[in-house]
Amino acid sequence: MTQSERASTPRIGGVIETALYVDDLARSQAFYQDLLGFTVAMAPIDRMVVLNITDDQVLLLFKKGASREATVLPFGTIPPTDGAGRLHVAFGVTPSDIDAWERRLSDAGVDVESRIDWPEGGCSLYFRDPDGHAIELKTSNWSGRPFLNPGS
Amino acid sequence: MTQSERASTPRIGGVIETALYVDDLARSQAFYQDLLGFTVAMAPIDRMVVLNITDDQVLLLFKKGASREATVLPFGTIPPTDGAGRLHVAFGVTPSDIDAWERRLSDAGVDVESRIDWPEGGCSLYFRDPDGHAIELKTSNWSGRPFLNPGS
Repeated sequence: MTQSERASTPRIGGVIETALYVDDLARSQAFYQDLLGFTVAMAPIDRMVVLNITDDQVLLLFKKGASREATVLPFGTIPPTDGAGRLHVAFGVTPSDIDAWERRLSDAGVDVESRIDWPEGGCSLYFRDPDGHAIELKTSNWSGRPFLNPGS
Repeated sequence: MTQSERASTPRIGGVIETALYVDDLARSQAFYQDLLGFTVAMAPIDRMVVLNITDDQVLLLFKKGASREATVLPFGTIPPTDGAGRLHVAFGVTPSDIDAWERRLSDAGVDVESRIDWPEGGCSLYFRDPDGHAIELKTSNWSGRPFLNPGS
C-alpha cells in the first residue's frame, strides 16, 4: 500500500463484538453476568446469548455448532461462523480495582491461573471460563499505559 | 448474586485484546494492516503477531497450534490457548465511512458476503479474512445507536 492509499483508509473505531463458542449457553451466561457484571443485551435465543460489556461492546456467546448455517433474516443474512478450542479475550480494568478483582475471583471459586506484572507497567490476571477459554483482566494497554475505563 | 453484591462488582472497562487463530501469520498480518489499517504493536514472534486496532485495543493473531503450551517469561507465565474454526469479530466504523469501506473492500478484491441494514439502525458489512473468519464492520452499537469512533 502506498502512503496516499494508507492516508485514505477509513478508520476502524474499535472492537464492538467479540465472540466465544461455548458448550452450555446458560452456564456461560451466568458466569459472565455474575462474575464480570455483564448485562443481557438481547433475550437469549437457541444459538446465542448477547451480553453488554460496555455501552458500545458486546460479548457474543455462540452455542458450539449452532451457527454453522447462515441465519436468514427478513432484512439480510448473517454469515455462518463456528469455533472450537480454548480462545482468548482480555478486558481492561482500572488499576485500583485489581485487588477487588482478585478477591472477587477467589470468592467465586475461580482459580487465578496466572498473574503477570508486566515490565512495561500494569498487571494481568488470567483465569478460565466454563469452557476453558483464557480470560484476562489487564490494568494497562499493550504499551503499558494504565487503563482507565474509557469504555465505561 | 444479591443486589449488594452486584453493586460491589468492580467494572470491566472494555475489550482490550481479541484473538484470532490463523494458518499463516504473515498473510493475516498483511490483510489486517493493508485492508483495515491496523499497525504493528510489537515485533512479530514465531507464535503471534500483535496489531493495534485503537490506542487501547489490539488484535492478537496466533499461529494455530503454536500456543498450546504455557509461555514462561521471566516475570510470569502466559496460559496456553488455541483455537479452530471460523470465528467472528466485529469492528465499529463511522456511518459516513460505510461507502468508503465498501469501495475499499471491493478495490482489495475482498467479497462482501453480506450487507445487513438493521431495523434498529445502522448497517453491517461481512467479509472473510484469509482463514475464513467472519469479520464485520458495523456502523452502530448493539442497540442501534450510531457508532462514532469513541476508541479512535
